Amino acid sequence: MPDTSFFPRGAGLTVGEIAGLTGAELGAGTEPGIRLTGIGALDLAGRDDLSFFDNPRYAGQLAATRAGCVLVASKYLPLLPEGLPHLVAANVPAAFAVVGREFYPAARTPSAVLPSLGISPRAEVDPTAEIEDDVTIEAFAVVGPGARIGRGTIVSPGAVIAGGCAIGRDCRIGAQVVLSNALLGNRVILHPGVKIGQDGFGYVPGRAGLDKVVQIGRVVIQDDVEIGANAAIDRGAIRDTVIGEGTKIDNQVQIGHNVAVGRHSVIVSQVGISGSSTVGDGVMIGGQAGITGHVTIGDGAQLAALSGVATDVPKGARWGGIPARPVREWLREVRFLTELAKKGRSPRNERND
Amino acid sequence: MPDTSFFPRGAGLTVGEIAGLTGAELGAGTEPGIRLTGIGALDLAGRDDLSFFDNPRYAGQLAATRAGCVLVASKYLPLLPEGLPHLVAANVPAAFAVVGREFYPAARTPSAVLPSLGISPRAEVDPTAEIEDDVTIEAFAVVGPGARIGRGTIVSPGAVIAGGCAIGRDCRIGAQVVLSNALLGNRVILHPGVKIGQDGFGYVPGRAGLDKVVQIGRVVIQDDVEIGANAAIDRGAIRDTVIGEGTKIDNQVQIGHNVAVGRHSVIVSQVGISGSSTVGDGVMIGGQAGITGHVTIGDGAQLAALSGVATDVPKGARWGGIPARPVREWLREVRFLTELAKKGRSPRNERND
Amino acid sequence: MPDTSFFPRGAGLTVGEIAGLTGAELGAGTEPGIRLTGIGALDLAGRDDLSFFDNPRYAGQLAATRAGCVLVASKYLPLLPEGLPHLVAANVPAAFAVVGREFYPAARTPSAVLPSLGISPRAEVDPTAEIEDDVTIEAFAVVGPGARIGRGTIVSPGAVIAGGCAIGRDCRIGAQVVLSNALLGNRVILHPGVKIGQDGFGYVPGRAGLDKVVQIGRVVIQDDVEIGANAAIDRGAIRDTVIGEGTKIDNQVQIGHNVAVGRHSVIVSQVGISGSSTVGDGVMIGGQAGITGHVTIGDGAQLAALSGVATDVPKGARWGGIPARPVREWLREVRFLTELAKKGRSPRNERND
Repeated sequence: MPDTSFFPRGAGLTVGEIAGLTGAELGAGTEPGIRLTGIGALDLAGRDDLSFFDNPRYAGQLAATRAGCVLVASKYLPLLPEGLPHLVAANVPAAFAVVGREFYPAARTPSAVLPSLGISPRAEVDPTAEIEDDVTIEAFAVVGPGARIGRGTIVSPGAVIAGGCAIGRDCRIGAQVVLSNALLGNRVILHPGVKIGQDGFGYVPGRAGLDKVVQIGRVVIQDDVEIGANAAIDRGAIRDTVIGEGTKIDNQVQIGHNVAVGRHSVIVSQVGISGSSTVGDGVMIGGQAGITGHVTIGDGAQLAALSGVATDVPKGARWGGIPARPVREWLREVRFLTELAKKGRSPRNERND
Repeated sequence: MPDTSFFPRGAGLTVGEIAGLTGAELGAGTEPGIRLTGIGALDLAGRDDLSFFDNPRYAGQLAATRAGCVLVASKYLPLLPEGLPHLVAANVPAAFAVVGREFYPAARTPSAVLPSLGISPRAEVDPTAEIEDDVTIEAFAVVGPGARIGRGTIVSPGAVIAGGCAIGRDCRIGAQVVLSNALLGNRVILHPGVKIGQDGFGYVPGRAGLDKVVQIGRVVIQDDVEIGANAAIDRGAIRDTVIGEGTKIDNQVQIGHNVAVGRHSVIVSQVGISGSSTVGDGVMIGGQAGITGHVTIGDGAQLAALSGVATDVPKGARWGGIPARPVREWLREVRFLTELAKKGRSPRNERND
Repeated sequence: MPDTSFFPRGAGLTVGEIAGLTGAELGAGTEPGIRLTGIGALDLAGRDDLSFFDNPRYAGQLAATRAGCVLVASKYLPLLPEGLPHLVAANVPAAFAVVGREFYPAARTPSAVLPSLGISPRAEVDPTAEIEDDVTIEAFAVVGPGARIGRGTIVSPGAVIAGGCAIGRDCRIGAQVVLSNALLGNRVILHPGVKIGQDGFGYVPGRAGLDKVVQIGRVVIQDDVEIGANAAIDRGAIRDTVIGEGTKIDNQVQIGHNVAVGRHSVIVSQVGISGSSTVGDGVMIGGQAGITGHVTIGDGAQLAALSGVATDVPKGARWGGIPARPVREWLREVRFLTELAKKGRSPRNERND
């Protein structure tokens, strides 16, 4: 396999070292001294790559793989072609992820666009901003008065940090991010084009049209949050919009004013969360789901992609559909209607009508 | 309450002055001389803050509030804790909004990112652009040939105003807005990342693939329109895309070529309106709704969040569902199916099958 | 009609020349020497404009049009007002598109924002970047180390091309596009705000929260692809994300890691395609549709707007609904439920319950 990745390989690890690192067990007949330097999909991996097998759908690729070693769950051992070096792991994706981070440290967090570190002479940084050491601010970025930026943070080209914002340490502020009325913790990653802290959407009917409801809250983003490209998070009206520690938010998500999202939740692409709703800890929200305002999604709840949540969702519940209800009920109704409509067309049924 | 807002308080108003300003009536036993300087939610407001109560869901917070005064509708007076200063208003949200705008004038419209007004030496402004007095163009903004910008307008960092565009007075052009082939009225607010005037999406099958249909129309945005972060409005193909006076558009909305939106309509986040459709005056479109091309949404219609509109919608109608139909019918069908599916599982019913 | 387009007219063509160019036939009594210089909608076109009629909905406009000539299908000839010059075309939209491209060559592709070509002194271009002749890089654009940009390409203000990216010839990189880990073919158009090549969305549960799965793949965009404003395409995890030749993608579309889209497909606004799914050639995906991960959409399939695809879709199939199924079944079920719910309310039925 020609190496086409933008991320360079290092010295790698031996299969034995990988076993130690991940807790996986060396497969029968697998030589611990094999050295691997990269990771790859079954159909693309070469002799220097670790691959993984976790989905029977790809059994054909497993049979034909040229990977140097494969991570596999014990239940799939019978599918392994003879002689293929392998490691047996209880949690294959987790073990594979550990190795990936080890092999490609540069891929753990976004890097600066330009090679020169420090503050670019072509950035516009207000003299009252407080910038710690070891901060990189790239060309054409703007930092407003009184903004604070912590050590190890990179502000990419064209990003705008408005006055008074605080950014913690080791953050990555992507190109063309706009940040206002916001406080960020440490190790926060904002991908390109994220817009945080603009006005929430609030109006009341007035004499000559719609009058604005002022939005005087902030956006508070806790440690280790990651937010995807072109997502938008509005500042609160009269409280803060809050994204809890470790929560991961995908591209183009929209989060309205006053929303509070808990810790370690996952919000997939194009989800919209309306104003003043609360999302608990460990919640998973599928792509394009929409949540109405002033509702609560309990801890650990899971919402199916494209669902439309109009009411509170209990802790740990799995909901889907529009309007959202327990997934099991929703899918049963879908199937039920399908069956019914089929029968509805039968001659017998038509006679009964 | 520690004051955490990015918006400074001023001298404030007395409760008596607030009554005069909003038309609210002084509550029984409420001292008109109490001076307030801020607004806050019931659970966060302190002695210097005006709060409001408008939703019985928050009765617990009302009982415990430490706000200096509360705006309340007369029907909720029995829920007020004894001794809490209050103002009785016919329309509580509207009165609260009036006070908010009075207390926080800086929150009425987005402000410049950097403190220096005028045209930044680090902006790129074509010499043929016509810029009125009292315009601010911040660092790294670009203004193309022949563009016109009216008095009092602020163009934020990184915004791009392409050649020939006209922007009225007192507009706010957010960071990283891109504007081409567009005419804007006065007091238009474009939040960060809005993209206006790019090609509409039009192709015809050609010999070697899809051939572009040229898009030679414009985008016309009338007075007092506000458009949310990362929204996109395409220019027309052979007519203009038009957004009517006073219409408010939320983040990430997509509006296709030739669409005409009327006056004082409200379009919530992530809505998509396909090409050549017409939206009337005073229409409300819920989040994530989608409207197909070449249909008409009548004046005053309301479309539920996540609805999918495939046909014309009559004036004043309330529609929802996919495909959209009158909300009442849609919800009745949803409930009907739920009931039916429940019965469908019962042993008796299964025997009948 | 006052000429309000941002695109100037040229010398135009005679009706006879248009017939030759498009293969249309000169209508009865139509003078081949009439010279036209622009295109317009029936209700807006003037004596110098070509218009077209293709939808009986606009018969009223046809009757009243002041266009200099109208393209029309033979089946609609009876609707033509007497004396209106016309051309009869087998494929009216295609013929109209040909003329539009001929009349307005400047509208075929986006142009530079500023008049000066070449590399702006206010762009930041790494000295190791390889820029061919006849490339325009506008103010405040950034080009990283080792990036390559082909002849005839325009990089607009504020665009960021990260290190190692390759862009082919005659491409248009819109304002505030961010490109990383990506290879682009020739004649690719990226509208403003497109974000390509950021991290895919991958995490595994770890000890202290969610751990990142490194994303070491690329984004490969083939010739003649066009991508709409504020769209986002993530780079692959352990393979590439690929957009095939000639495919057209509308505004705000989201494409996840490892997705492969085929050739000459059309993806309408706000669609989301989840990781590792495959979309064939000539596929049409309606607005706001969502596709789950690891599924395959067969060549030539058509997905209705707002559909939610949870399984593979066969070649040439037309699917819709949530979860998606054949459009005919889906719509039949919708109608069936509507009928059933109506009956369900009837007194007779209630007695039977």
